[in-house]
Amino acid sequence: MRISLLVTAMLVALALAVGAQAKEAPMTSQHPIAIVIHGGAGTITKESMTPELEREYRAALTQALKAGYAVLEDGGRAVDAVQAAIMVMEDSPLFNAGRGAVFTRGGLNQLDASIMNGATLEAGAVAAVQHVRHPIKLAWTVMSESPHVMLVGEGAENFAWAHGFPYTPASWFYTERRWKSHIEGLKTLKSTSAGTPAKIPGAKAYVYDTVGAVALDRDGHIAAGTSTGGLTNKLDGRVGDSPIIGAGTYANDATCGASGTGTGELFIRLNLTKSISDLMAMKGWSLEKAANYMIHDRLVELGGKNTGGVIALDAEGHIVAPFNTPGMYRGWIGTDGELTVKFYKDR
Amino acid sequence: MRISLLVTAMLVALALAVGAQAKEAPMTSQHPIAIVIHGGAGTITKESMTPELEREYRAALTQALKAGYAVLEDGGRAVDAVQAAIMVMEDSPLFNAGRGAVFTRGGLNQLDASIMNGATLEAGAVAAVQHVRHPIKLAWTVMSESPHVMLVGEGAENFAWAHGFPYTPASWFYTERRWKSHIEGLKTLKSTSAGTPAKIPGAKAYVYDTVGAVALDRDGHIAAGTSTGGLTNKLDGRVGDSPIIGAGTYANDATCGASGTGTGELFIRLNLTKSISDLMAMKGWSLEKAANYMIHDRLVELGGKNTGGVIALDAEGHIVAPFNTPGMYRGWIGTDGELTVKFYKDR
Repeated sequence: MRISLLVTAMLVALALAVGAQAKEAPMTSQHPIAIVIHGGAGTITKESMTPELEREYRAALTQALKAGYAVLEDGGRAVDAVQAAIMVMEDSPLFNAGRGAVFTRGGLNQLDASIMNGATLEAGAVAAVQHVRHPIKLAWTVMSESPHVMLVGEGAENFAWAHGFPYTPASWFYTERRWKSHIEGLKTLKSTSAGTPAKIPGAKAYVYDTVGAVALDRDGHIAAGTSTGGLTNKLDGRVGDSPIIGAGTYANDATCGASGTGTGELFIRLNLTKSISDLMAMKGWSLEKAANYMIHDRLVELGGKNTGGVIALDAEGHIVAPFNTPGMYRGWIGTDGELTVKFYKDR
Repeated sequence: MRISLLVTAMLVALALAVGAQAKEAPMTSQHPIAIVIHGGAGTITKESMTPELEREYRAALTQALKAGYAVLEDGGRAVDAVQAAIMVMEDSPLFNAGRGAVFTRGGLNQLDASIMNGATLEAGAVAAVQHVRHPIKLAWTVMSESPHVMLVGEGAENFAWAHGFPYTPASWFYTERRWKSHIEGLKTLKSTSAGTPAKIPGAKAYVYDTVGAVALDRDGHIAAGTSTGGLTNKLDGRVGDSPIIGAGTYANDATCGASGTGTGELFIRLNLTKSISDLMAMKGWSLEKAANYMIHDRLVELGGKNTGGVIALDAEGHIVAPFNTPGMYRGWIGTDGELTVKFYKDR
């Protein structure tokens, strides 16, 4: 009788313990977290860099990674981590996004950005905005506060003012380095009018300093975002892949999140990031196989080498960052919590 | 001996005949041709139509089909047939594209269009243009004459002027019917400022009169195009799926061409037309199964009923036109040369 009482008590205690654990589980969800970012792909080689410039890029990428990761560690959403990481890079003059954006044929900074929430497939995008310091924040606001996915030009800016964004003067975006590239570019185009462009300069010397981030949060949700000033000497009003959902940015909890950098026109024609997701969903390919195929096979078939790269992660936190250019500014904090920053092939 | 001479002569004649036929074959390529168009999906019911209005729609769709088919019969390219068919619908005040476009929140006609060549995956797109009579022609010109895929707003218009497009005044696009819808729409939005939109009106009463065309030419090449004024009372600068490659428009000789009409935001989030192509390429689905799945399953899962439709054709000239709305203005000339025009379910 005493023994049976003891057994009963033990069973009750066990049941209580199991119950408590079951109740607690959703509150301290232990889904692994991870974040991966890029600061553009292109002709990035050890020879073209100085130790000082390397330090600056490393510091900026590290700061962006930490800003995004802090959101994830606090249990924040992947979309908010993506926004936080990209805002840091938009404020750095090193990258072609926000401050430091390249100039259009007409001498303007016209900025594009997009963001996608893999949990809901909600998305937001803006293009050709000129007076918004953080285009990724405006894309986030279009996603969250409007019935639309994409706003462009003056309409996008009017939406920004109505939502409390401050007016940012053109001088904020100016950097001597990008202005010089603009003038150099114009020289090669002198035989064509502003409206009748020659083909864009060969991609050989191009650096696509678009920035992007992909994150996985404690709830297992994936998000991706991209922000850019586009191509030096692009026609005014040109929109590349960065603000196009499925081209430069895509996220879906069922497959992956991805952000691209490169010759935007090719990324659009290939729906590059959505294709990675479809290869995983429809052919059962791994993230690595799908991303490598799109960058090293399909992108090269359509446009040749030196056309770009992509960062991507899947629901388990696997991270890939293939590129067909000499280098790509990139970094990640994986599910192991380790921070890595790389510029060149394999380092 | 005489018989063997006769046999030899017959064999020589046969060989000559076969040789002649073999030589001639590539010159008179006999790939079947076909074209399918739409003039929008929505709350299109027999009850809401008059016999007169039915006649007008039937005449306009027939004229557009014949314009596109004439190009194909002459051995012209699918991209040119698509452009020809859509230009007819852009000039008709019946459709929400070109003349007859709806008004934005700010009372503007802002037009979007795109075109894609399935033979090369080349594409062109424009968005938020206000003074171009034929946005599809401008998209065609961006594809053919610029290094870019997409131009928006003033930049797109400057490109148009430089390429000889005439300036079209806003009065060209004005129709009393669309202005009335604009005013009616504004009444329901009166509690919100221009910059802080309420959610878009429920899709129930919506008609998405976007136009589109998909064609298959004598060389077996597929092309697709779409043109629209977007949504009534859309925020100025809003871009829907029509000018987004992979969302409202996609073409690939290896799979299909497709053009969508409906709630653009959902088409963008699903990359709807590219998804049809991927289901065929990656899962081996038929055109019919893939298009039905995207319209009746995925689109309904994400946005509910009454959200749109798509027209599509494959390399063999199979034509499909599924929609989850009460009706869709649509027509085709199949590989049998028969012309069909339909408005409602099954008729």
